[in-house]
Amino acid sequence: LSTPICGVIPPLITPLTDGGTVDESSFEALISHQLDAGVSGLFVLGSSGEAAYLDDRTRERVVEVASTIVAGEVPLLVGALDSAPARVHQQVSWIDRHSVSGLVVTAPFYANPSVRETAEHFRSIAHATSLPVYAYDIPANVGRRLEAEMVVELLSEKTLAGIKDSSGSLAEFRIILDSLDADSDAAVLSGADVLADLALELGAHGLIPGLANIRPDLFVGLVRAHRDADDKAVQAHQRAITALAAIFKTGEAYGLGRHSSELGALKHFLHQRGVIATTQVSQPMTPLPEAGLRDLDRIHNALQARFERDLS
Amino acid sequence: LSTPICGVIPPLITPLTDGGTVDESSFEALISHQLDAGVSGLFVLGSSGEAAYLDDRTRERVVEVASTIVAGEVPLLVGALDSAPARVHQQVSWIDRHSVSGLVVTAPFYANPSVRETAEHFRSIAHATSLPVYAYDIPANVGRRLEAEMVVELLSEKTLAGIKDSSGSLAEFRIILDSLDADSDAAVLSGADVLADLALELGAHGLIPGLANIRPDLFVGLVRAHRDADDKAVQAHQRAITALAAIFKTGEAYGLGRHSSELGALKHFLHQRGVIATTQVSQPMTPLPEAGLRDLDRIHNALQARFERDLS
Amino acid sequence: LSTPICGVIPPLITPLTDGGTVDESSFEALISHQLDAGVSGLFVLGSSGEAAYLDDRTRERVVEVASTIVAGEVPLLVGALDSAPARVHQQVSWIDRHSVSGLVVTAPFYANPSVRETAEHFRSIAHATSLPVYAYDIPANVGRRLEAEMVVELLSEKTLAGIKDSSGSLAEFRIILDSLDADSDAAVLSGADVLADLALELGAHGLIPGLANIRPDLFVGLVRAHRDADDKAVQAHQRAITALAAIFKTGEAYGLGRHSSELGALKHFLHQRGVIATTQVSQPMTPLPEAGLRDLDRIHNALQARFERDLS
Amino acid sequence: LSTPICGVIPPLITPLTDGGTVDESSFEALISHQLDAGVSGLFVLGSSGEAAYLDDRTRERVVEVASTIVAGEVPLLVGALDSAPARVHQQVSWIDRHSVSGLVVTAPFYANPSVRETAEHFRSIAHATSLPVYAYDIPANVGRRLEAEMVVELLSEKTLAGIKDSSGSLAEFRIILDSLDADSDAAVLSGADVLADLALELGAHGLIPGLANIRPDLFVGLVRAHRDADDKAVQAHQRAITALAAIFKTGEAYGLGRHSSELGALKHFLHQRGVIATTQVSQPMTPLPEAGLRDLDRIHNALQARFERDLS
Repeated sequence: LSTPICGVIPPLITPLTDGGTVDESSFEALISHQLDAGVSGLFVLGSSGEAAYLDDRTRERVVEVASTIVAGEVPLLVGALDSAPARVHQQVSWIDRHSVSGLVVTAPFYANPSVRETAEHFRSIAHATSLPVYAYDIPANVGRRLEAEMVVELLSEKTLAGIKDSSGSLAEFRIILDSLDADSDAAVLSGADVLADLALELGAHGLIPGLANIRPDLFVGLVRAHRDADDKAVQAHQRAITALAAIFKTGEAYGLGRHSSELGALKHFLHQRGVIATTQVSQPMTPLPEAGLRDLDRIHNALQARFERDLS
Repeated sequence: LSTPICGVIPPLITPLTDGGTVDESSFEALISHQLDAGVSGLFVLGSSGEAAYLDDRTRERVVEVASTIVAGEVPLLVGALDSAPARVHQQVSWIDRHSVSGLVVTAPFYANPSVRETAEHFRSIAHATSLPVYAYDIPANVGRRLEAEMVVELLSEKTLAGIKDSSGSLAEFRIILDSLDADSDAAVLSGADVLADLALELGAHGLIPGLANIRPDLFVGLVRAHRDADDKAVQAHQRAITALAAIFKTGEAYGLGRHSSELGALKHFLHQRGVIATTQVSQPMTPLPEAGLRDLDRIHNALQARFERDLS
Repeated sequence: LSTPICGVIPPLITPLTDGGTVDESSFEALISHQLDAGVSGLFVLGSSGEAAYLDDRTRERVVEVASTIVAGEVPLLVGALDSAPARVHQQVSWIDRHSVSGLVVTAPFYANPSVRETAEHFRSIAHATSLPVYAYDIPANVGRRLEAEMVVELLSEKTLAGIKDSSGSLAEFRIILDSLDADSDAAVLSGADVLADLALELGAHGLIPGLANIRPDLFVGLVRAHRDADDKAVQAHQRAITALAAIFKTGEAYGLGRHSSELGALKHFLHQRGVIATTQVSQPMTPLPEAGLRDLDRIHNALQARFERDLS
Repeated sequence: LSTPICGVIPPLITPLTDGGTVDESSFEALISHQLDAGVSGLFVLGSSGEAAYLDDRTRERVVEVASTIVAGEVPLLVGALDSAPARVHQQVSWIDRHSVSGLVVTAPFYANPSVRETAEHFRSIAHATSLPVYAYDIPANVGRRLEAEMVVELLSEKTLAGIKDSSGSLAEFRIILDSLDADSDAAVLSGADVLADLALELGAHGLIPGLANIRPDLFVGLVRAHRDADDKAVQAHQRAITALAAIFKTGEAYGLGRHSSELGALKHFLHQRGVIATTQVSQPMTPLPEAGLRDLDRIHNALQARFERDLS
């Protein structure tokens, strides 16, 4: 890619059959749903893609299916999720067989690296591939933040092509953006839902928000409204997104783990609207109970009514 | 195995060549070093075995080499380290090709499971293999403890054949041990170094202590002294072990990450004594600097002198 | 107060003599420095006021001195910092003797309350005083966040007059602001420095930023530029503030604790410019070393040069 | 005191009237209950004494009542709980008016001190009083551990007369004990319930266990059995204590905070047996519901039956 990735790049859920294999036709419908909404790229095998739960064969099938469907229409980022350089290299070895646009890589996890060792991790991975490498800052899963100063150094030395910040804090995000040279082609991307408008205002090049799985139109509309400096539309879109974020916590009220609650909400929403065929999540995640489904509907109906009023 | 695993089961480091492949002859020397000292079992691909850093081919090579060398002389436990059931199944699929005695499995990591989901994780794994499954409680790497009540339930329903507790806290360890029926054949094993004698006193069936890599004799002697109710010998051995644990922190004084510091200490010690050929650790770990080596020697010489006085 | 507190409300440091008592004339100079810059209120005995380190006599002296100097010119908020309701009541008993505009109160600390117990804590305090009560969300010191849903409930039932959010995360801040009724008179205040402009954009009623101690003009200018929708000026002011925030970390490079580093930077800056007479901090904080002072100057000179270019 | 404090030193709960004042006659009954059981000392205003919740007048009343009742019969330790040196000095100023044997002091809390600053905190306090100072290591409330190396230094320089370890981990406890010179008069005391026997075996000079409030006889019996090397009796007593510890979690099943659950269990137990007049806990703690009381009885009856069998 000659230009850095930008716009809305949904971190896709992985549609599964009841048997737990990749559901190709649902995947096709999901990607159409996204492309129709005008997204600029797609990201598979991130946390929303339940990568931590899928074996390598299923992971590779995700990449194969997605890259075939996308067919170069938009950039396709792929999570190369594993605990240390040699294991990430192993992921890259099969990702490389497919037509993809970049790798998204976390700091070492399970391991207890120092900051210097974390930097070496990214250098080792970037050295071994010709694909652009994006750092994935997701402390809720990895257990620690990426240090802003280290990210700035890795972007500046071109080890990293960009970063996806899913930390929830915008202070370091701003420090990274402020550090870029005028001619930098680094892609600084935000995983924020509730703060998506602010990330754009800070200069984020793109958004990778979980809620874009179900309402990509809200994020595409937000990015467009922001570009057009249409404050009223920015507000209406962001208000709808913020209200929609409540669905992530639906399952927690029923004792589900955080991933089960979040992925359950996304999959049920897509299933109810006929985009995907099942609500299947990987073991050992717990399915969302019936009562939770009603909560989802209530949240969505309320925000949609308001959204339409806001825009009119 | 008809009887539960017990005694000293060192969590072996993985000897590497300068090129980062498994160093078979060093592995053979290391295992001889252990068997000569009278250990009762061996554990490969745990945290000390840098499993989180090795790709699958290297991991399988470790199991192949170790199982060939051990040749059934003692039980061989193997870590099946990955983030969720489907990925652990994938590890088991190649571990199963070799002659091993049991699997050691952590709670899901990277993921954010509830307690109920963690139990389902172990049930899914146990269901898919005929090998005994041991839970590995290592919160420093996984990010959360295993709940004692859940472990008791999984032991009682025979999902788990045992547990390796590397949490550093003995309160839950005691609660688990106290919960066992008189005729239980569960193996409750401790990863403690500094508290090894107390774990035995609580009724631990075995020890899986990192320092046994370098001084298996101290742990074998401790278990024997404990069995013989020789309090003086118990004290002498444990005092030496406690003093030896200081080597784990050597590297931290030089800015190394925790794993680099601990594994560096073990590998340097074995290298200095001619057991293994290199001090190579996996990327992105940092080698221990020269000054750290002198610290190691100082610590070991002091404790050895005292140990000999204590025993005489 | 008939209108909610708003604008810039610096969380004042406490000027001390070499003997550790309140330095009245430095306090007067500091407050003049603030009022001259156009701040809308003042907050004493917060974390920046080293309240956690001052005994009650010194705390009361701070309130006496500050309320006398301020003399009602602007609202004066006072931290009533203690671990549980009865102990906060004790603080309020002497704060009440002075002319102050509101109390700022954290969740219980040292204690391990549930969310429900935390709500009861605020209710107990509000019930016992006629002063407005502001919740102080400062997880870095208290050890846990205030739940947004609980804050919304306490604001809506008028237990709380407002909240000071020093959590560093804007997502909950936005959720609280979005929850307010159109006719709510709640004051939602942000402790953010690096994200001050975004807090304003989300609708924050006021700012309580530590850096306002030394450069109140930057925050007053930011609020004014935001009110005037002067984007260029907003950017120039915020860029200067963001760069200034680097001084907080100066001391950490020399092994100081976080409070020592932050308060040392603020006090040295004010001392160098002749506002306060000493750089004294309370026991057991460590003074900033000489080399740190040069770092402060370098950071400030660079941002000031750029600020002047940006504005011209 | 010429000899270091040792034996069982219960960390007393504070009996309150329905109005929340110190219930003197219940306090007298509680202390008689303790002295009759043969405890060697008493500790008031610790975490079990709900010190974090009591205002200074109530705290002083606790010391006045306790010191009058105890009347020098056994040593009386007093918690001087506050966030930094000047505030602890303030506590000491009124504690000093009463006849007490030593002060128990935590690391700074609310504050974010470095290790060096934590050491200075203890030095500042010890310097200002002629009473022996005991460090109180209670990370669940303070938010961080005391570093073993720092404790060893403070004991060796006589800043500290001893330490109460309520961390739950015995590894550092052992390192501290092992570091003492043969002629040291430091008192190394354990707050452990479930691991009390092991603390004694490591050489703990005394025990300060919360459960001693309700069954001091179990701990006095344990210490005696340990002194007599009566292994069967050690086991019987410890087994009863371990089983009794389950009452601490009773309230958690009903949504109570940790302190509410633990203190509620202790106070209900003492109330049911007629030792104290009310089950009153300080605001904002939640009372234990009726169903919880039945859980307490069930737990206690089961362990008592077994204890009697074990001893017979």
